[in-house]
Formats: sequence, structure tokens, C-alpha cells
Amino acid sequence: MFISFEGTEGVGKTTLIRRIHDYFTAQGQSVVLTREPGGTSMAEQIRALLLAVNHEEKMCSDTELLLMYAARAQHLDQVILPALAAGKTVLCDRFSDASFAYQCAGRGLSESKLQTLNNNFVTRMPDLTFWLDAPIELGMTRARARGELDRFEQEKATFFEKVRGGYQTLWERHPERVKRLDATQNPDQVFAQAMDYL
Amino acid sequence: MFISFEGTEGVGKTTLIRRIHDYFTAQGQSVVLTREPGGTSMAEQIRALLLAVNHEEKMCSDTELLLMYAARAQHLDQVILPALAAGKTVLCDRFSDASFAYQCAGRGLSESKLQTLNNNFVTRMPDLTFWLDAPIELGMTRARARGELDRFEQEKATFFEKVRGGYQTLWERHPERVKRLDATQNPDQVFAQAMDYL
Repeated sequence: MFISFEGTEGVGKTTLIRRIHDYFTAQGQSVVLTREPGGTSMAEQIRALLLAVNHEEKMCSDTELLLMYAARAQHLDQVILPALAAGKTVLCDRFSDASFAYQCAGRGLSESKLQTLNNNFVTRMPDLTFWLDAPIELGMTRARARGELDRFEQEKATFFEKVRGGYQTLWERHPERVKRLDATQNPDQVFAQAMDYL
Repeated sequence: MFISFEGTEGVGKTTLIRRIHDYFTAQGQSVVLTREPGGTSMAEQIRALLLAVNHEEKMCSDTELLLMYAARAQHLDQVILPALAAGKTVLCDRFSDASFAYQCAGRGLSESKLQTLNNNFVTRMPDLTFWLDAPIELGMTRARARGELDRFEQEKATFFEKVRGGYQTLWERHPERVKRLDATQNPDQVFAQAMDYL
């Protein structure tokens, strides 16, 4: 089983993933906990490029998209596919839905570019995706409380509203896979919502 | 005018590019000398990932291809397109033909993947491409003499034979754009061959 967790900054993905990880582990299941962009040492190096704040040179939107998919290809090849083949459960903090939400809905990049990358380079989609949804202000307050903001976290609220709208579009398009969780609730309640689907 | 220079390791691309650069500059033309992967500070960081020798984790072929195109998108956006728009001549050490030769012909990656990336992310092709062709042994001897070998240079001779075959395919497919230069000749003679086309 391959489960991804999606949502804007500060909605509580990490907390939920840890709880589901502990739950599965307590049941004796073998669980791999990973994240995107990243998940392997090489993909984490790509992640560092993506998140770095660079005042000298603006990263163009095509570059950002291609770096995301480069990291994803490595992550699939080295971590996700081998783990699934070994019968393990994979819990992944963000996956290709994030590219749709951030790059297409957020930055306005054409959906056909994304589709062509998904068709050619994403050989396995999650079986289940939890979308943790909460008003942008709430998440940003939590993200700010965590400390310094990366390049994505420095975006304006209007950008994150678009990203949230992107997730809503995916939820409407793929109701069988994408499940919306009300992330304004406390961690126990969010976990209980997720368990209803599991 | 956008001119790219292609060929396997050690065929003398750098020497030829410098001579053509000096020739154009002496004529009062404004010339931008650049290279792939790389050409901007961000793209050079991607280049470093691509060339690094990593014994812990193998870079999968999709990742390599996508990193190449990420660097290329940034290079086009930040260097090549602005220079051409300003009426400058761009001399580029390798461009998208190298992806065909190294990733498709060399590594056996599907050509449709490459085509889809070219169609979606390469908004400008070179007007003229010089393919410096020489037997693999000759180039490898020169590359080795330069010092430590990067990840590509460490490949076996059979790999480079396939890459050379890839360049030959492109030369046959695009005779109007790709010009073959006999790179077994000395630098003066190679320069003279190139000048015949310019």
C-alpha cells in the first residue's frame, strides 16, 4: 500500500504521518516513511536546490518542475518501488499531486507539461492520498512558528490560496483516491478521520 | 545566431569554441560563450550533481535526463534567450543533441521520453551544430591526460561508441543543421573546416 499526504504548509502532515506510522508498526507491518522532494541522498540534494533562497538568480518555473520530477524519479526507483515490491507500506509526505497544486495551480504552469511528465516518468501513483485541508492563515501561522521560511514558505497568501484550490480540484477529480481531512481539528481527531478511510 | 558544439570527450570542443569566439569578437560581434549542463550559477549546481561520482547511490537514467533538462530550461531562460534577443551570438558547448547521444543512444533511454521533453521544454534549437567526430580512443586519451575523470568520463569505451553512433544519427537526420567536423585533424584544420560552414 502506497499512501501520500498532501496539503499546504503547516496543516499537520508530519504529525499525522508519524501517528499512522506508529499505528501500522504496532500492528507488525513494515512501514517506510519518506518525503518529497527528497527521500534518497541524491533526491535530498535536489531538494536543497529547490528550497534554497537565491537572491541572485530566479529559478524559472520549468526548472522547478523538472527538478521536482528528477527527484521523484530517483525516489521511485530507489525507495518507493523496491519497498512496495518487498510488501512494505510506504507513507510519503507529498507526491505528484503536489506538483499539480504548487506548479500548475499555484504558479500557473500549463497542465499539459505536467501531464506529459506524469505519463512518462511517474510509473506508480499512490493507492490512497490524504489531503489535509485548513485555511491558509492557520497553516502559515504554524509554519512561521517553526522558524525560518524556505523559498516556498516565503510565497504570499494568494499563492497558497491557489495551491489549496489545486488540491480541491484533485479531490474533486479523483474521489476514489484523494480523501479530504479537516485539518483544523486537533491531531487526535485528524488521525481518527484518517483511520475511518484505512 | 545560436551555435552548439557536440562530440564525445576530448575531441577538442573547447579549443574550437575559443577560436570561433576570438574570431567573432575580432570582427566586433558580441559573443556569449556558454556550456551545458550549466551556464548559470543554478544550472552549474545541477551540473555538479550530474557529474559527481557517488558510490553509495546510483543515479537512475530518468533522473539524469530530467536533471539535464532542468539545467537546460534555466540556461535557456536566463542566458541563451536573453542573449539572442539582444542580438548576440551564442556559442554553446553541448545542447539538447547531447541528451539524445548520451541518454538515448548511450544509455538506451526511450527516444519518446526525450522527444516529449524537447517538445515541452526546449523553446529554441541551435541554428547550427558542429559535431566534432573522432575515434573514441583518441578522445579518451586526451580526456585522461586532463586529469581525474567525472562520472561520464568513467564510462566504458562501448558506451562512448554508442554515443558517437547517436551523433552520427543526428547528423544524418538533420543535415541542414548538424555539420560533421573531422576532429582527428589539428586545431588549425578543425577551425578551418568550421569556417567553411560559417
